[in-house]
Amino acid sequence: MSNNLTDLRIALLKQSYAAGETTPQQVVTEILSKAAEYADYNLFITLFDNSQVAPYLQGLQSTEINSLPLWGIPFVIKDNIDLAGIPTTAGCAEYAYTPEESASVVQELIDAGAIPIGKSNLDQFATGLVGTRSPYGVCHNAFDFEKISGGSSSGSAVALALNLCSFSLGTDTAGSGRVPAAFNNLIGLKPSKGLLSTKGVVPAVRSQDVVSIFALNSQDAYSVFEVAASFDTKDEFSRKEVDLTPPPWPTKPVIGIPDKASLIFSDDAMAETNFHDTCSQLQSLGFELKEVPFSAWLETAKLLYGGAWVAERYAAIEDFIEQHEAIMDPTVAGIIASARNLSAADAYKGSYALQKAIRETEMLWQAAGVDCMMTPTTPTIYSLTEVAENPVGLNSILGTYTNFMNLLDYAAVAMPTGFRADELPTGVTFFSPAGSDRQLLKLCDELHPQFVEFSGSKQTPVPQSNPEMFANPAVIPLAVVG
Amino acid sequence: MSNNLTDLRIALLKQSYAAGETTPQQVVTEILSKAAEYADYNLFITLFDNSQVAPYLQGLQSTEINSLPLWGIPFVIKDNIDLAGIPTTAGCAEYAYTPEESASVVQELIDAGAIPIGKSNLDQFATGLVGTRSPYGVCHNAFDFEKISGGSSSGSAVALALNLCSFSLGTDTAGSGRVPAAFNNLIGLKPSKGLLSTKGVVPAVRSQDVVSIFALNSQDAYSVFEVAASFDTKDEFSRKEVDLTPPPWPTKPVIGIPDKASLIFSDDAMAETNFHDTCSQLQSLGFELKEVPFSAWLETAKLLYGGAWVAERYAAIEDFIEQHEAIMDPTVAGIIASARNLSAADAYKGSYALQKAIRETEMLWQAAGVDCMMTPTTPTIYSLTEVAENPVGLNSILGTYTNFMNLLDYAAVAMPTGFRADELPTGVTFFSPAGSDRQLLKLCDELHPQFVEFSGSKQTPVPQSNPEMFANPAVIPLAVVG
Repeated sequence: MSNNLTDLRIALLKQSYAAGETTPQQVVTEILSKAAEYADYNLFITLFDNSQVAPYLQGLQSTEINSLPLWGIPFVIKDNIDLAGIPTTAGCAEYAYTPEESASVVQELIDAGAIPIGKSNLDQFATGLVGTRSPYGVCHNAFDFEKISGGSSSGSAVALALNLCSFSLGTDTAGSGRVPAAFNNLIGLKPSKGLLSTKGVVPAVRSQDVVSIFALNSQDAYSVFEVAASFDTKDEFSRKEVDLTPPPWPTKPVIGIPDKASLIFSDDAMAETNFHDTCSQLQSLGFELKEVPFSAWLETAKLLYGGAWVAERYAAIEDFIEQHEAIMDPTVAGIIASARNLSAADAYKGSYALQKAIRETEMLWQAAGVDCMMTPTTPTIYSLTEVAENPVGLNSILGTYTNFMNLLDYAAVAMPTGFRADELPTGVTFFSPAGSDRQLLKLCDELHPQFVEFSGSKQTPVPQSNPEMFANPAVIPLAVVG
Repeated sequence: MSNNLTDLRIALLKQSYAAGETTPQQVVTEILSKAAEYADYNLFITLFDNSQVAPYLQGLQSTEINSLPLWGIPFVIKDNIDLAGIPTTAGCAEYAYTPEESASVVQELIDAGAIPIGKSNLDQFATGLVGTRSPYGVCHNAFDFEKISGGSSSGSAVALALNLCSFSLGTDTAGSGRVPAAFNNLIGLKPSKGLLSTKGVVPAVRSQDVVSIFALNSQDAYSVFEVAASFDTKDEFSRKEVDLTPPPWPTKPVIGIPDKASLIFSDDAMAETNFHDTCSQLQSLGFELKEVPFSAWLETAKLLYGGAWVAERYAAIEDFIEQHEAIMDPTVAGIIASARNLSAADAYKGSYALQKAIRETEMLWQAAGVDCMMTPTTPTIYSLTEVAENPVGLNSILGTYTNFMNLLDYAAVAMPTGFRADELPTGVTFFSPAGSDRQLLKLCDELHPQFVEFSGSKQTPVPQSNPEMFANPAVIPLAVVG
């Protein structure tokens, strides 16, 4: 790799440890030193010092490298997810509390040997897709300091893109785990709802929140998912992967894409070109693409903010906002406070509209005969200046292809598809019904190296695909006789 | 049978038709004549005359008796379910509309040969468990004119108990298909949510509404269920039975009952005695009963009215109530209008409480190791006078064991267990996870004749059990290998 940085891909890093080429202490020291150089990116709300990382490094000393799947693997935690003993701010100092226990998902990762190195900046209360709505400063894009990084999991994505960790945790309610992946040349896995515990996560829209995984490639995302996806009796929204039974895929899935009238790029010709090039390349790789009438999905996306779900954001911080609205990020406060005017009847009417959308999209999906769908991850990308001038309107456009995902109970993976003419990264998102996380990661593992050579902004190579990695021995397809 | 009435049990009536002993015309004529004698029971909002029934009788003439499962079988429709060309009132004349199409479930039954003979009285907008909340008059109990019939599907239940039909349709959101069954010595099947279409049904709590079946015995309930349970693409809440995969039962299911502290009889010693006698009899029949700590279920029951779900009732008739609150049944209007003060945040908080309850009850169920549960259907029964004095409070007590059922996604069957010392009927309800409708009916078919000799109030015999009837050839258990 260039820049004399350690290659932090999970399998390679474990090999380096096993070969005695480096140690977790050396890796962490290098990361913390490099992170200081990126202070003006506003990546972290709490970047740990050596003494804060020490207990996790010490915890590894009595264990074998190969006994733990994430032994010595450094990771970053979005600061709306608890790590014991470190304040959780959710991007709001006045809201902060210091948890005694780590979030269940964080504890799973630590138990598997992973080393937390910091709590990352975010759009306040995970409300935004831009990365600019934080009193801890705008989080800058890893490729262009004047462009948005995407949010709300901005710091987690950019820290990974800048090679400051091997993977990072975000949360993803409306697109917060996918938009920053697209803008920073990363894989963004938005797992099926309920597979990763949300215990110890500050709720945004509690019924729709998931913990998400940023990774350099699909193999790393899969390794983290294998550890992080764990049924949690303490999280009433937790679901068992085995209970989710999405349709199986053929070896080469049929890929649905939005019909032409539903393809929105907000006059961004570079984004449009990239998407059409991606489609052409998939066809040249032998994939069948089918146009699906997509307006029902776009309409569903509008429910997340146009319906009453924003009242879940209000319910999550009701006591706090009633005391501290004036000191909150004004855009975030405005959005959440608007829910005061929503009635219970509005909430139920929204749920009916969603139920109708679920049925309609199911029928369209079946009629189309596709295995998964692919959209641009976002219509376009904006500069910091553009978003400052129209913070709500442009944010809303960014959610065009992401806001419907949890409402309709899909798993999704955002995957880079190369660089636009202006050298900014861009990408697509593949999605399919809940439980298909592994299938989607396997597909992206196959496709990712066909589109880009490097992950993030620091020249980490994208590995060749490794399909054998993606079998799940615990799940054997159900046999249905009828 | 006594009273020279025709035995209206489905299989027997079809046999009589096949043997030429009677005709649908004769049966309908007898029913309409008898119904007139019961005018003071306030059973019907619209009782059909011969000309209104004629088209349905004519429809049978070109069909073979054995070609249609419900050929010539008379039934009654709760008047919140559409029948084409007949006003649907929902118990409120000012609300009435005349639908052009029948509800999907009604059409399925008519297509199977069943003959509608009237639209029955109900607690207005299906809001009540008493049968007294109707401007069309109090619906009286089939056994004691001074006692409540139970509601909200009061007319449907009492018409069946008085031998005016072979089966009837109710709706059941909070217990409306089970409470009147218990009070009138009938089987009340509350199907799993979504198996019977609710298209063409006036919503009460739309996310929790089901169409229910009153029958003289489990075999008849099963015959109706087989026709009525049909996936409906026009009802976005419709679910396919094959998609519901409740745990299979052993031949003799282990039956959970509430722990002693959770058994509520409101000081009704007769009800308490009957329930304990029922438990003893089940044990003497070789069933294992296990006490289950039941307070989580009782707390969940309180959510239906104590949470925000009442706002669904408001949303269902919002425009109407804003114009006509003063002319509505005052108790019903008071309940529904209270939802004006509920916020969207309240609705979501309620959904979180429910999600927690779902998880808690699942874990308690698994820990108990039971296949189904059994409770009294109601704690007690009241006189019309008692309910008039305390219409909301006593109604609430009646929902103790029924209000949680749809929220927690169970199938349930209310089954008579004999007569109290005051000669009033009483009963229990068996329930288990969605999709177990057939298993529950089979169990009740086995048990029902062990407890009572007759159905309803007109001495219709309870048949001997017929376990072979209850297999579902379309559903073969899923094979899971893991």
